[in-house]
Amino acid sequence: MLEAVLDRARQGRAQAEEDLFELLAIPSVSALPEHRHDCRLAADWLVERLKGMGMFAELIEVEPEGQPVVMAEWLGHDSGPTLTIYGHYDVQPPDPLEEWTSPPFQPTIRDGVVYARGADDNKGQHLAGLKAAEHWFAAGRPPLNLRFLIEGEEEVGGRSLPAYVRANADRLSTDYLFIADGSFAAPGQPELVTALRGMLYTEIEVTGPRVDLHSGIFGGIAPNPFNSLAHILCGLKDREGRILIPGFYDDVEPPSSEELEGWASLGIDEEQQKRLMGVDELPGEPGFSLLERKWARPTLDVHGVMGGFTGAGSKTVIPARARAKVSMRLVPNQQPAKVLAQLGEAVARLATPGTRAQVFELNSALPVRIDTSHPGIEPARRAFAAAYGRSPVLVREGGSVPVTVDFQQALGTHLLVTGFGLPDDGLHSPNERMSLDQYHRGTEMVIHLMDELARAES
Amino acid sequence: MLEAVLDRARQGRAQAEEDLFELLAIPSVSALPEHRHDCRLAADWLVERLKGMGMFAELIEVEPEGQPVVMAEWLGHDSGPTLTIYGHYDVQPPDPLEEWTSPPFQPTIRDGVVYARGADDNKGQHLAGLKAAEHWFAAGRPPLNLRFLIEGEEEVGGRSLPAYVRANADRLSTDYLFIADGSFAAPGQPELVTALRGMLYTEIEVTGPRVDLHSGIFGGIAPNPFNSLAHILCGLKDREGRILIPGFYDDVEPPSSEELEGWASLGIDEEQQKRLMGVDELPGEPGFSLLERKWARPTLDVHGVMGGFTGAGSKTVIPARARAKVSMRLVPNQQPAKVLAQLGEAVARLATPGTRAQVFELNSALPVRIDTSHPGIEPARRAFAAAYGRSPVLVREGGSVPVTVDFQQALGTHLLVTGFGLPDDGLHSPNERMSLDQYHRGTEMVIHLMDELARAES
Repeated sequence: MLEAVLDRARQGRAQAEEDLFELLAIPSVSALPEHRHDCRLAADWLVERLKGMGMFAELIEVEPEGQPVVMAEWLGHDSGPTLTIYGHYDVQPPDPLEEWTSPPFQPTIRDGVVYARGADDNKGQHLAGLKAAEHWFAAGRPPLNLRFLIEGEEEVGGRSLPAYVRANADRLSTDYLFIADGSFAAPGQPELVTALRGMLYTEIEVTGPRVDLHSGIFGGIAPNPFNSLAHILCGLKDREGRILIPGFYDDVEPPSSEELEGWASLGIDEEQQKRLMGVDELPGEPGFSLLERKWARPTLDVHGVMGGFTGAGSKTVIPARARAKVSMRLVPNQQPAKVLAQLGEAVARLATPGTRAQVFELNSALPVRIDTSHPGIEPARRAFAAAYGRSPVLVREGGSVPVTVDFQQALGTHLLVTGFGLPDDGLHSPNERMSLDQYHRGTEMVIHLMDELARAES
Repeated sequence: MLEAVLDRARQGRAQAEEDLFELLAIPSVSALPEHRHDCRLAADWLVERLKGMGMFAELIEVEPEGQPVVMAEWLGHDSGPTLTIYGHYDVQPPDPLEEWTSPPFQPTIRDGVVYARGADDNKGQHLAGLKAAEHWFAAGRPPLNLRFLIEGEEEVGGRSLPAYVRANADRLSTDYLFIADGSFAAPGQPELVTALRGMLYTEIEVTGPRVDLHSGIFGGIAPNPFNSLAHILCGLKDREGRILIPGFYDDVEPPSSEELEGWASLGIDEEQQKRLMGVDELPGEPGFSLLERKWARPTLDVHGVMGGFTGAGSKTVIPARARAKVSMRLVPNQQPAKVLAQLGEAVARLATPGTRAQVFELNSALPVRIDTSHPGIEPARRAFAAAYGRSPVLVREGGSVPVTVDFQQALGTHLLVTGFGLPDDGLHSPNERMSLDQYHRGTEMVIHLMDELARAES
């Protein structure tokens, strides 16, 4: 039957693209309250598709202010494995809008690539899984039990899916959990992930005078929260990229020598990497290779600074407060709660005279390690080889998929973490995109994976 | 006739308040293009008032994109001195709006104080001068020739009035130039200003990657413009407040020992200063007194930071660029152009690896020194004593009134720089305010000043 399913996938490419564009046209930005209804529309769209192919599907409401989880399942086999496919229907805010060549929620094809917010992250990736299931159902029935868990809070670190998973661990029991929310290691080179960085996302707030002051009258005696913030940020990370928070690196578990050897063999082209990023150099923590810095070392980055005057012209205000969005990527064995405490102490100490600084956690995710000897790994390798003509390499992932931790801890399942995107798909950036060829082959990869996992078990 | 004029002022207080509220209700924010028409309305309002009292008045258009200068004059005396009164009808942007108790352009009286953007800076102050002239005309005629120059670009460092003054220096020849754009040294204690700080207002732009990058994927190898900006700002000013730009202090002319002795005798109450500013300490450059730091030392302050993600939630972007609004207050003998060059070199050098930084000048003003032995000083002292019951102290001003330099250089006139505001009037801040008593006595002070200057001459 596999060939019949693959045939359907190949003949259904035009329809699969229409489906993708429909989903991409829904501006399901979870971070922006004005798009709350759009998130719901995306979730409803998915439920209808999943019901339409013959699965039981429903929206699970977990947190009063949260976005619903799309849960769908088909348990038509009395025995054999269950595969759960994860995805997230929410997307990052599209700003800065002026840098998009075509509007972020009007999917536009240029040179076989679809440009839209969410094309890679994550609509194009979980839709490949949906389409794979749809083709199996259309040809007969899937070779193993299936479940989908598609959340709407991945981009805002929401707790709905993690809470749902932890509260329903028995009911959601699954042999394999498939997460395609990453990318290829390089064009043509699929990857399987052995560890993901965690994350601690904070806001640092610095307060100075109780009211905004005029810098002409008070400049020279007034504590300035922005100048203090600069000294705090400098005290957290040095010019070269070493993080200076006392104790920050204590728990970092270095990669194994096997991992390091494997990464060295990947032959990363630094010039290509620079072109992809649009940079002239690749600065970072001294003493570590490029891939170690991307995958196995923690980071600290500032994402935005709020407060004061940011309009046109020259308002000379010493503001009452300044805030910065600052996140840290964490690596296996680091604990977000411990890092938060270390950060809070460092920040309070670094504030300049007359100012006070506090840290607020916006969200966090534990780093994740994946056992690479579990029984799903070889089937996944074969599925990639069949769909893309090349077996995946073992890598780490620099980003976090927070719910992975909950899947691992609550469900005790075998994780398969990978992705169908390409390294230059512009995640979280203007002109986010997804190669339609990658999307279609991703569908085929999941079709093969279902077949391979069912056969591996029998 | 002086008594008759003063009587009119005292009996006309209700009308004077209505006039002030009318002008304050016009949101003449020069920094915001959407208020361009409102600036014109404020200028028209002033021209009508000046014509109404019997002066020749007109709008002078200088720069195509600028705001018009209100020019009014009455040269009814064949001999005797001419007094020119300066003011500016433009105001600072009112944000943050949510911190205003009453709306910024709905003047509201609480406890004898009017709250509105521009109440102190500068509508309440130049309107006191207008009302003084109006009362003289109503009682007969002013005792000396009068001119008003009221600009609409003071808050944006515009060039219209300076260009007009320099191009028409002969025509605008004047014996005295009166500028009330400051405040009392303390409640009940008027001041005369002997020097004003200048200013250099810049934007520092830091660029990193050509496009926004995802911190999960690229964190550890991507240059982050915000982290670079923090290192630049730290390298410009240390934790204690010393400015680190090489050569920055070279041209600073220290205050005379007479000035320092005078300031020491002012007996500044540091606790009161802290309460006024809403701070717990008064940090600043080590080794200098509070008044030296406010008046005679240059400063460097950050006013706002732009770029990246500043919305709700936790977008993990490493942005392509970050910008900061940074200004320096300059003191006598420092040159903005020279400081700009020093700053540009320092900033370029301080950018962290993989980022580039540039400085753009938004505007600048030379610092000003005023000779305190000119023939207008004693009349001004007597006018203050008559109106407020106390003679002014000689102080410096921390802020700049950029056109002062042009008045001094092009007109060679005697400057009288002072103010009717109070030290806690919240200039450039939410809930800006003006004591109505200070406003009315300011009108009386200018009535006396006109009388005193005319008599001093004769």
